Amino acid sequence: MNSSYIQDIDDDDTFKILIATDVHLGYLEKDAIRGNDSYNTLDEILKYAKTNQVDFILLGGDLFHENKPSRRCLHNCITKLRKYCMGDTPVHFNILSDQTVNFNTTQFPWVNYQDENLNISIPVFSIHGNHDDPTGAEGLCALDLLVASGLVNHFGHSQSMERIQISPILMQKGNSKLALYGLGSIPDERLYRMFVNNQVTMLRPKEDQEEWFNLFTIHQNRSKHGPTNYIPEQFLDDFLDLVVWGHEHECLIAPTRNEQQLFYVTQPGSSVATSLSPGEATKKHIGLLRVKGRKMNLQKIPLKTVRQFFIQDVVLASYKDRFTPDTPQVTKKVEELCYAKVEDMLDEAERERLGCPLTPEKPLIRLRVDYSGGFETFNTSRFSQKFVDRVANPKDIIHFLRRREQKEDIKDEFNVDYGRVLKTTAVEGLRVEDLVKKYFEETEKTVQLSLLTEQGMGKAIQEFVDKDERDAIQELINYQLEKTQRHLQVRGVTTEHDIDEEVMRQGMQWKWAKAHRLERGDEPSRADLSSEFADVAMDSNEESEALPPLTRGRGRGRGRGGRGQGGRGRGRGECGSAAESQVQLLVFFTVVRSQQSTEEHCS
Amino acid sequence: MNSSYIQDIDDDDTFKILIATDVHLGYLEKDAIRGNDSYNTLDEILKYAKTNQVDFILLGGDLFHENKPSRRCLHNCITKLRKYCMGDTPVHFNILSDQTVNFNTTQFPWVNYQDENLNISIPVFSIHGNHDDPTGAEGLCALDLLVASGLVNHFGHSQSMERIQISPILMQKGNSKLALYGLGSIPDERLYRMFVNNQVTMLRPKEDQEEWFNLFTIHQNRSKHGPTNYIPEQFLDDFLDLVVWGHEHECLIAPTRNEQQLFYVTQPGSSVATSLSPGEATKKHIGLLRVKGRKMNLQKIPLKTVRQFFIQDVVLASYKDRFTPDTPQVTKKVEELCYAKVEDMLDEAERERLGCPLTPEKPLIRLRVDYSGGFETFNTSRFSQKFVDRVANPKDIIHFLRRREQKEDIKDEFNVDYGRVLKTTAVEGLRVEDLVKKYFEETEKTVQLSLLTEQGMGKAIQEFVDKDERDAIQELINYQLEKTQRHLQVRGVTTEHDIDEEVMRQGMQWKWAKAHRLERGDEPSRADLSSEFADVAMDSNEESEALPPLTRGRGRGRGRGGRGQGGRGRGRGECGSAAESQVQLLVFFTVVRSQQSTEEHCS
Repeated sequence: MNSSYIQDIDDDDTFKILIATDVHLGYLEKDAIRGNDSYNTLDEILKYAKTNQVDFILLGGDLFHENKPSRRCLHNCITKLRKYCMGDTPVHFNILSDQTVNFNTTQFPWVNYQDENLNISIPVFSIHGNHDDPTGAEGLCALDLLVASGLVNHFGHSQSMERIQISPILMQKGNSKLALYGLGSIPDERLYRMFVNNQVTMLRPKEDQEEWFNLFTIHQNRSKHGPTNYIPEQFLDDFLDLVVWGHEHECLIAPTRNEQQLFYVTQPGSSVATSLSPGEATKKHIGLLRVKGRKMNLQKIPLKTVRQFFIQDVVLASYKDRFTPDTPQVTKKVEELCYAKVEDMLDEAERERLGCPLTPEKPLIRLRVDYSGGFETFNTSRFSQKFVDRVANPKDIIHFLRRREQKEDIKDEFNVDYGRVLKTTAVEGLRVEDLVKKYFEETEKTVQLSLLTEQGMGKAIQEFVDKDERDAIQELINYQLEKTQRHLQVRGVTTEHDIDEEVMRQGMQWKWAKAHRLERGDEPSRADLSSEFADVAMDSNEESEALPPLTRGRGRGRGRGGRGQGGRGRGRGECGSAAESQVQLLVFFTVVRSQQSTEEHCS
Repeated sequence: MNSSYIQDIDDDDTFKILIATDVHLGYLEKDAIRGNDSYNTLDEILKYAKTNQVDFILLGGDLFHENKPSRRCLHNCITKLRKYCMGDTPVHFNILSDQTVNFNTTQFPWVNYQDENLNISIPVFSIHGNHDDPTGAEGLCALDLLVASGLVNHFGHSQSMERIQISPILMQKGNSKLALYGLGSIPDERLYRMFVNNQVTMLRPKEDQEEWFNLFTIHQNRSKHGPTNYIPEQFLDDFLDLVVWGHEHECLIAPTRNEQQLFYVTQPGSSVATSLSPGEATKKHIGLLRVKGRKMNLQKIPLKTVRQFFIQDVVLASYKDRFTPDTPQVTKKVEELCYAKVEDMLDEAERERLGCPLTPEKPLIRLRVDYSGGFETFNTSRFSQKFVDRVANPKDIIHFLRRREQKEDIKDEFNVDYGRVLKTTAVEGLRVEDLVKKYFEETEKTVQLSLLTEQGMGKAIQEFVDKDERDAIQELINYQLEKTQRHLQVRGVTTEHDIDEEVMRQGMQWKWAKAHRLERGDEPSRADLSSEFADVAMDSNEESEALPPLTRGRGRGRGRGGRGQGGRGRGRGECGSAAESQVQLLVFFTVVRSQQSTEEHCS
């Protein structure tokens, strides 16, 4: 349809909604070249919303890349929201639903534009993603800081683990009625299981059900990463009209019709590339959704500030006419071929960028070289130098891979990215090891370790590392401590010797994750863990995946991508469950003992 | 004066200002008993301000205990400020000065109550303290997040390192004119030096100088911790009328007159005890300051939510009539004496608490036992059990010390506080060691380390650890990297071998701290470092100080107190400059080399 028609339909009965997702604010913010990309694009998105006077902005999760955004990142986000979303422009729709149900994560349970102390011109509605999901005993996420400040309306946060009841935000503009449903990110296996067990229900207004346009926002795997590691569209209620699907980074924003459920699905995709996979190379867009009665129209808005990304695959074995592994100086010939390919992409990038002043100069370039069949790799750092001034990612342009092989060139990993070496220090556990071991040496205690499960500890370590959740391990210890003490008291165990024996005999299973998650209505499971590890594997694969790629630019687990640690993910995982868990077991056991001897003296 | 009089003077010409400082929000927030203390008291302070309809709140720094407050802490603070300081109550004073000068840390350089998008009823004006001071390349501090949200007005942030010009916020209410001066925390030695060198000037309005009431807020050492490690009152201009002195935790809020400068000084003190030193035992107050013309009146407001703290000293040698080191069962007798002392304090606490429902039940109790003269210590953990249900700090009631001895009982340290063991994992550097060493082993490179100074690295490690400044070390490396590359290029050094030789020959001095600080108008110096280490020493002393105490409840350096790491501070420092700096030197050198070889191929 042409834009004149679109203008025509901007009337008092038409909702104008700006749709975006996976902004990943703060992604690579320390990178000298790409550091401002995510900030510039958020600015473009908000500016567009203001210029086009939308009724509200709908975000599909992962506004923040890190679970604990940096001060700079929070400051930047707050500043931009205040700059673009506050002002005198009146808001033209009303909310008819119970807002204390819709906005259940705040002490100000009402939509921000109705707060008499805030002058909001563009309300922002957002669900949380897997990157910025709630953590800790308070179950707060980064979004909730914006909510407390009155800059964002966080919805779709399910508090219960038994069942998810999604109550829509019921909006009315003129004669149009919009029911906005949302569901913040939940581990895919768990949500999959809950759907299968009919534990997920979407509430509908009693009156005039047919008059409502039903819009649903979700942040899950859409593409199948495993038997139950995604959410099939068929799981979603067929009364829906449009589903805005977050988490998947490939821009497939043009609504596709699900012929079985008869609803449409739009996948806006991320507004910044957080991996160099093909899905991220698709041109980035946001959407301007118009809803009038039950009719909708989705206008694609190309983002101008997004850095260009070109990716190509080369299968060396298919160039038999030019060289084989036995050809003299084959490596040189291969290198020349790659130079040519990259030059082609750079030319294409330059042509495309003509007349786009907002687009960053240096594009992202990825050439995936399949050297199966006896070919050798060449020196990528030397290759990089040719393009250091013209490419945003000179250090990892070339990506060697072989069919059905997963080997990684660790050494290359190190040469590539020193930021990575430093950032990896986020694994803090090892410091404990030194201290605790020292302590045990000094006090000449020797204990056997048999209280916690590897998986359990793995989970704690993951929260600790991936989400920078400094209390994850301590909460585990506190929980298990109480549990053990209760047990020991019941058994009437008092002396240290008896404690040792009893504890060893029991070898109690660790249930901390459950206790921890109960507080925020989640449920732990073997599946969680496997999914976590699946994530890790996924990340590592990125460095050495076989063609065609497993991933289509989906949101990477736990911001590891951002730290450029794809290749290290798995390594970390193992380190977590081995070395660190042992450390924590030591600490934990120390606590149990001393606390117990404490009660000894009390009674 | 009686309150009736006070009521009388509440007229259209009278500024009503609530004065508080060192709220240390988030202090011990993970402690099961004391975790909410700082939050409850902030609530009390803000509630009081609202109930008494003050014109504004003035904070003297250290609103936050941690440089990087937790999500819970930020969320709590934002929520309370929004709850108490927003609303329809009109603000009755005007600002006459250039606000872009007064509020120079924000993109919204005007007082929040004049922002047309915010409905502020009680503006908060705050300087930053040493706990929540600006860090990182952006020079942002935790306060600036509140500023971006429009909840606080951050002033007194000096951007220059050459000289400090303090421009007052000029306020007028009716006929009263108030000039509000502020200076955020600066390392004492540096500020001392700047005062001595006449680099600190306070600007004054040109007209009607005599009509202005001049109020100054500062956050520095007031008590002398070393020859230049404090700010003498005499340094401050004598045109001032009242100085609100932050940082010192002892409540000495009744204005004392400086007979030389003829101004008054009020020291409100912290609203939560962050150490168990005598200064913190003084009853906590905030102030209600009234200013009419040049007249002022300061009303002491006792804080009801503050946990009681009682401290006593026992010198065993002075009980010759009851026991000597040779008395049979002397330890038992000593223990009994201590029990009695603690019981006395508990009785006193209970009496005092009668009719104070807001005061927490369990008091803080500290008994400092000087066992000089051949006495033995006794088992404190056993002692603790007697009081585990009645004291807020059962694990560290008893504090053994000897005159002129600084020894520490490490083992006891460990038994006392497991939180400490875990929290200390904040030293992340060691992970780097593993990786980098691994890297060097793998690549069989051997380099000598001669580029960075211990002090320089010490500074970086301190920012890294104490302020959780994750980029401190990387910024150092980047800076030195560029510096070295420039040098090498000038010298025309290209081959790796030449690099080694050249670098070794030069052994360039490291100036990162300066470069880093230049961005935010600071200046590094030997003095900084000594002061840092002085801090550390101070903290350690707390565990074993000789009577009388060195510290009078002053704000502890870098929130270490909060982490309960007093005793570990020094240990950390050393670890930083030894093991970790070496690690970083390795990393750094690796970077230099590879980047250099990079340019080699470019040219």
